Amino acid sequence: MPSSIRITGARITPVAFRDPPLLNTVGIHQPYALRAIVQLDTDAGLVGLGETYADSRHLARLQAAAEAITGLDVFALNAIRAAITQRLRGEDAAVGTAGMITSASAVDQVLSPFEVACLDVQGHACGRPVSDLLGGKVRDAVPFSAYLFYKWAAHSGAEPDQYGEALDPDGIVAQARRIIDEYGFTAIKLKGGVFAPEDEMAAIEALRFAFPQHPLRLDPNAAWTPQTSMKVASRLAGVLEYLEDPTPGLDGMAEVAMQAPMPLATNMCVVAFSQLAPAVAKQSVRVVLSDHHYWGGLQRSRLLAGICENFGLALSMHSNSHLGISLAAMVHLAGATPNLTYACDTHWPWKTEDVVRPGALAFVDGSVPVPETPGLGVQLDEDALAALHEQYVRCGIRDRDDTGYMRSIDPSFEALSPRW
Amino acid sequence: MPSSIRITGARITPVAFRDPPLLNTVGIHQPYALRAIVQLDTDAGLVGLGETYADSRHLARLQAAAEAITGLDVFALNAIRAAITQRLRGEDAAVGTAGMITSASAVDQVLSPFEVACLDVQGHACGRPVSDLLGGKVRDAVPFSAYLFYKWAAHSGAEPDQYGEALDPDGIVAQARRIIDEYGFTAIKLKGGVFAPEDEMAAIEALRFAFPQHPLRLDPNAAWTPQTSMKVASRLAGVLEYLEDPTPGLDGMAEVAMQAPMPLATNMCVVAFSQLAPAVAKQSVRVVLSDHHYWGGLQRSRLLAGICENFGLALSMHSNSHLGISLAAMVHLAGATPNLTYACDTHWPWKTEDVVRPGALAFVDGSVPVPETPGLGVQLDEDALAALHEQYVRCGIRDRDDTGYMRSIDPSFEALSPRW
Repeated sequence: MPSSIRITGARITPVAFRDPPLLNTVGIHQPYALRAIVQLDTDAGLVGLGETYADSRHLARLQAAAEAITGLDVFALNAIRAAITQRLRGEDAAVGTAGMITSASAVDQVLSPFEVACLDVQGHACGRPVSDLLGGKVRDAVPFSAYLFYKWAAHSGAEPDQYGEALDPDGIVAQARRIIDEYGFTAIKLKGGVFAPEDEMAAIEALRFAFPQHPLRLDPNAAWTPQTSMKVASRLAGVLEYLEDPTPGLDGMAEVAMQAPMPLATNMCVVAFSQLAPAVAKQSVRVVLSDHHYWGGLQRSRLLAGICENFGLALSMHSNSHLGISLAAMVHLAGATPNLTYACDTHWPWKTEDVVRPGALAFVDGSVPVPETPGLGVQLDEDALAALHEQYVRCGIRDRDDTGYMRSIDPSFEALSPRW
Repeated sequence: MPSSIRITGARITPVAFRDPPLLNTVGIHQPYALRAIVQLDTDAGLVGLGETYADSRHLARLQAAAEAITGLDVFALNAIRAAITQRLRGEDAAVGTAGMITSASAVDQVLSPFEVACLDVQGHACGRPVSDLLGGKVRDAVPFSAYLFYKWAAHSGAEPDQYGEALDPDGIVAQARRIIDEYGFTAIKLKGGVFAPEDEMAAIEALRFAFPQHPLRLDPNAAWTPQTSMKVASRLAGVLEYLEDPTPGLDGMAEVAMQAPMPLATNMCVVAFSQLAPAVAKQSVRVVLSDHHYWGGLQRSRLLAGICENFGLALSMHSNSHLGISLAAMVHLAGATPNLTYACDTHWPWKTEDVVRPGALAFVDGSVPVPETPGLGVQLDEDALAALHEQYVRCGIRDRDDTGYMRSIDPSFEALSPRW
């Protein structure tokens, strides 16, 4: 192995892939979801892969970061983070994350795909899977949850997709059956915040009846007041494994947490390292959903895991719409994180296109085996990348805007938090 | 590089090296300090080095751990920790650490030398210095502090050592001059708790006068009540960089911290991960002295660093009497830890014997350049190892006992905490 492997540049390719009309509290998924694919080039000829958001401002930051880290060694993760921090100085204010009302560290969001790509290169150079660079896998396969959404049958003016409509408890249960039949998931998450709390509680109760053994989660994305949250929590005692982000903010969550019989989880009020100490002090949550895309990559996600372990917080994993490079990274990370004991989220079933060659990642009984080949264990399909980039160019979407898309269909729609 | 590098066993060799009569609040250093040298053997033929304490109970645990991890891969650090945890189950109660009244995690203490040895092997296998496995160095050399001790001229019945007596401010200043002339240290730490606080404050003030530019630290090892601590802190306002462990326990430290004008530091009341959350909640300290020997090795010391960074704690580094393998590990760790911004402690000047071949580690202007060769960058001197093991066998010391040794000379001595 060469004693240095220097970054010679990064090719950042925005892509768009078809996304079904999935409903959430800020609106509805647009016909295409955006991602940026990072190909990190090195003087050793090894190319590392990373994947992240592709909103226009993020793309510009990725480009600036790629320039800032050119010339650095792929093992120099401290220096890489410092170079990106330096380049983005002044830009680390709250940034919207992918359609939800959250804030996170711009530096960590921008760092993430480059860090993953560096680990991919390191793994190839050392002949080791990325999980070995994270302390080694502690499980052979990573369990995921069935991620259910209220949804329309079709995008505006389009043909119905394979999953069809799901707008009530029966529709949600049917969706769960279909997804679980196909993937074997052993836990279920419902994206809520779409209908009145009573309707969503009815859906959860229908799921409990239909799937008596599956742990259940409900995530209304802060659609409720603390008072509403406490009512729901009380009614769903013994039914939910955890209740995710019922209400906005650390203080509101802390108020609910004091009375809720189940753990509260979050991927909204604790999405950056600076929010951990306040969250611990206020006892706002008992479960943090990690997400390497905004926690600065895999090594810093391990730091998050270690903080959670030592400050009384449990760990789960969040997902936005993603492709195979991110799934591989998630699986290596989760596979090597002892205290990540909940089934992870993934939007995988909703995705019909990808940029990686098939075969490396497969769901077996709801879990994805941790790849054992060097690096991330996935290979880019250059033709697919080109096709999805073409789709990005053609589709015209440059920033995720679930609210704007919903308002184009229903002009009266307002993204309110809390809504009920 | 082979796709697996399995541990085939570990040779654990206790050694004794000459140690001067250094005074502290629990007694005096014995004529020999003990260390255990770990040689981790692998099926790739690579041998990793580690160094740790050698008290008899610790040696027995090391032996048990070596058996427990045989067969595991050197990258499988999660599995290695799990195997040691399993083997030591029930033994993780408070354990005395090297003569001071502290408690720490037995698992992390036992894990540490094996983890360091695994990183040494990983580095050799990948052709990378250990610092590269920790995110890459962020400084080319690691600054250390001049570690001053009150001391006798000679051990009981022996010839005076090269440093001679230091029992008052003049003796301490002379000792500082000598050590700083030789090593170039740019910060100074005085081990206190030996004489009345007034005398030690006078020594600090004499150091301030003699070395106006050197940051100063005083460490009485919890020899004082909170009231005495607050008096000292008040008088030394503007003089000390930090005051280390003036009083025992998280509550006492918190009481002092509320009034002390300088940061309080610790390597006594926060020496294990389980103590971090209470220390943060109580605001007991502002500086944690890391020490990879009891924080579970280098990767877990990075976790400690990350926790400190995100919970408002600064980071320094503690030292017990140690040899060259540990110095190398400390330098790689400190070199790759961005928020380790204080000069580190080391007992290096007090040591006249070693087990590593000379040349790899050198002090330049008070700092040690981070080795750039693969692994830790130090090589074992098998003859020196054999000689210091012989010395261990001959000297008869099997457990560090500063108090017992002092009482053998002064039967009236009592180890009191607090003493003043």
